[in-house]
Amino acid sequence: MHIALDAMGGDRGTEEIVSGAIQAVCRLGYYVTLIGDQAQIEKALKVQLAALKNCDAVEEHTFTGDVRDRISTIHTSQVVEMGESPMDAIRKKKDSSILVAFKQLNEKHVDAVVSAGNSGATLAAALKTIGRIKGISRPGIAGIFPTLKKPLVIMDVGANVDCRANHLYQFAIMASAFSKLLFDIEKPRVGLLSIGEEGGKGNALVKNTHELLLSSGMNYIGNVEGRDTFQGDVDVIVCDGFVGNVCLKLSEGLADAMVAMLREEFRKNLKSKVGYLLTRKAYANLKKRTDYAEYGGAPLLGFNGSAIICHGRSNSRAIMNAIKVAAELARNNMNDHISNLLAKDQTLSANLSNIA
Amino acid sequence: MHIALDAMGGDRGTEEIVSGAIQAVCRLGYYVTLIGDQAQIEKALKVQLAALKNCDAVEEHTFTGDVRDRISTIHTSQVVEMGESPMDAIRKKKDSSILVAFKQLNEKHVDAVVSAGNSGATLAAALKTIGRIKGISRPGIAGIFPTLKKPLVIMDVGANVDCRANHLYQFAIMASAFSKLLFDIEKPRVGLLSIGEEGGKGNALVKNTHELLLSSGMNYIGNVEGRDTFQGDVDVIVCDGFVGNVCLKLSEGLADAMVAMLREEFRKNLKSKVGYLLTRKAYANLKKRTDYAEYGGAPLLGFNGSAIICHGRSNSRAIMNAIKVAAELARNNMNDHISNLLAKDQTLSANLSNIA
Repeated sequence: MHIALDAMGGDRGTEEIVSGAIQAVCRLGYYVTLIGDQAQIEKALKVQLAALKNCDAVEEHTFTGDVRDRISTIHTSQVVEMGESPMDAIRKKKDSSILVAFKQLNEKHVDAVVSAGNSGATLAAALKTIGRIKGISRPGIAGIFPTLKKPLVIMDVGANVDCRANHLYQFAIMASAFSKLLFDIEKPRVGLLSIGEEGGKGNALVKNTHELLLSSGMNYIGNVEGRDTFQGDVDVIVCDGFVGNVCLKLSEGLADAMVAMLREEFRKNLKSKVGYLLTRKAYANLKKRTDYAEYGGAPLLGFNGSAIICHGRSNSRAIMNAIKVAAELARNNMNDHISNLLAKDQTLSANLSNIA
Repeated sequence: MHIALDAMGGDRGTEEIVSGAIQAVCRLGYYVTLIGDQAQIEKALKVQLAALKNCDAVEEHTFTGDVRDRISTIHTSQVVEMGESPMDAIRKKKDSSILVAFKQLNEKHVDAVVSAGNSGATLAAALKTIGRIKGISRPGIAGIFPTLKKPLVIMDVGANVDCRANHLYQFAIMASAFSKLLFDIEKPRVGLLSIGEEGGKGNALVKNTHELLLSSGMNYIGNVEGRDTFQGDVDVIVCDGFVGNVCLKLSEGLADAMVAMLREEFRKNLKSKVGYLLTRKAYANLKKRTDYAEYGGAPLLGFNGSAIICHGRSNSRAIMNAIKVAAELARNNMNDHISNLLAKDQTLSANLSNIA
């Protein structure tokens, strides 16, 4: 497996990204091409490899050769900044790291792309290079959420802010294929995010999507509410990218706030301070269970190729895990699964012309 | 202050509601009219008052007379069930507890209505009886969320699933008036829920609303993301009722799931079990800080009268607090404040015809 990694994305700088690349080489044995400013990358590599020497120092390593043999670099002169308009940036910055990464994928020099940079630019670069799977009208971003049982996939979490019913229908197909592949769920239970459990409840988009999903071949369990999200009783939830992105960020914000509030409470007296020390391991475990770094990022689904968008604040572990998931999608021909599901699902072609 | 309380709503039954009414009498000295099945109410009153004797047994009581002097009842023969279609139910069930409660308000026999029953039916009953404030096109439900600082008001959290920009604009006016009154915030900071902080980001609804709010006289701070929600740096967030309801239920679901996960972790060994015992007070405080019961429920804003919708699983404390907030809205003529803000805000009339 060979992954193109955007070395210029992420809030923590190139060194953190490079560290993730080294971990991917040592632990997974993959090849990584770092794309970005050559001088910055070489400097980061030098620092990281000086600290490490060889893979023996990396926990759970499987590769024992020379790390540098599996890391290559491509110099690019431009970067798409976080605030930039994605479409403009991709049009103008022909030598940006993210666009060059996707060109590598399009030319089959690599198997997948991973980036922690501007999400919109990543989508735009994918659209411009590898393009959409035939029959998919709107590729999207699938978010992976922790639950009390198996992880939950919510799609779309930000690529498509204004959607029609057939888009949500296709999200259900794509997210089901992803859930099946990554979490080994034979028939993922698909729920439609709404504000009431009865099929008649919701906004216009939800009502139309409900009709489409009811007549599909998917394991559709009906409307689900935000309250059900984290119980683990649904494997895939579909919604438009506006609602999905709000959910993603709200969850993050609430988890952070709860931890901050608890910390304030712990500090109030000695007894609870001591209690906190005794429960630290439990907190560390909770953090691990709910850590976005566990899966590294959010996969782009619906494109002719594998790509993962990482959280801006990704650490090296998140980058490594994103590389792992991206490779898994490529190795298992995720896109073929989506194409097959699309072809099999006759409802789609029959119904899309009626409702939309 | 005199409150009409729907005795038939809520998942915990009439006894819990009646207990809330008794607390309101003892602690706040208010008059409460319980509306519902007479036999059930009398039975519940008998049980609760037998346990209590007089207000001396109620913590922080201010009333010392006979509780029964301040509790009256009105018998109704019908109930709107949770699953029922609100519009149909209110049309057909002329003698339902929720409709009779609002008729009492409309005829000025009481100052406010509190119900833990079917939210849609509560809205429909309000619309049919007291009606909308002049100039308000869509009344809505304001949700109160805990943050690290002062509570945050999000509107709408479920009354209006498909909205236009002028509706969100009016939510901002109403929620600002509420935030100012209840939390004593001179110029509430108003944020527009979106998926990016720049004004250009969001769906079509958000972009249109952004323009309206920019030219308003409100303390508009621009787009906010779900991540900011719980930090306490914004006082009012506006969004459509679909997104707001998803946020409300997602927050509930996530908080429950985090607590459940922590509990699983605590059970894993003796050390963390002991640690948990030492930090129990901190948890109890966190629970109190994030408890929906603190404000009792969600106020309906935009109607010609005060009403609070309580959570289905409200306990007696939540009912008592809802009565307290409902009375506060009535006593301070909340609706006049909204009318004044509407009249003052010239932007509204000038702009609404252009964007919508």
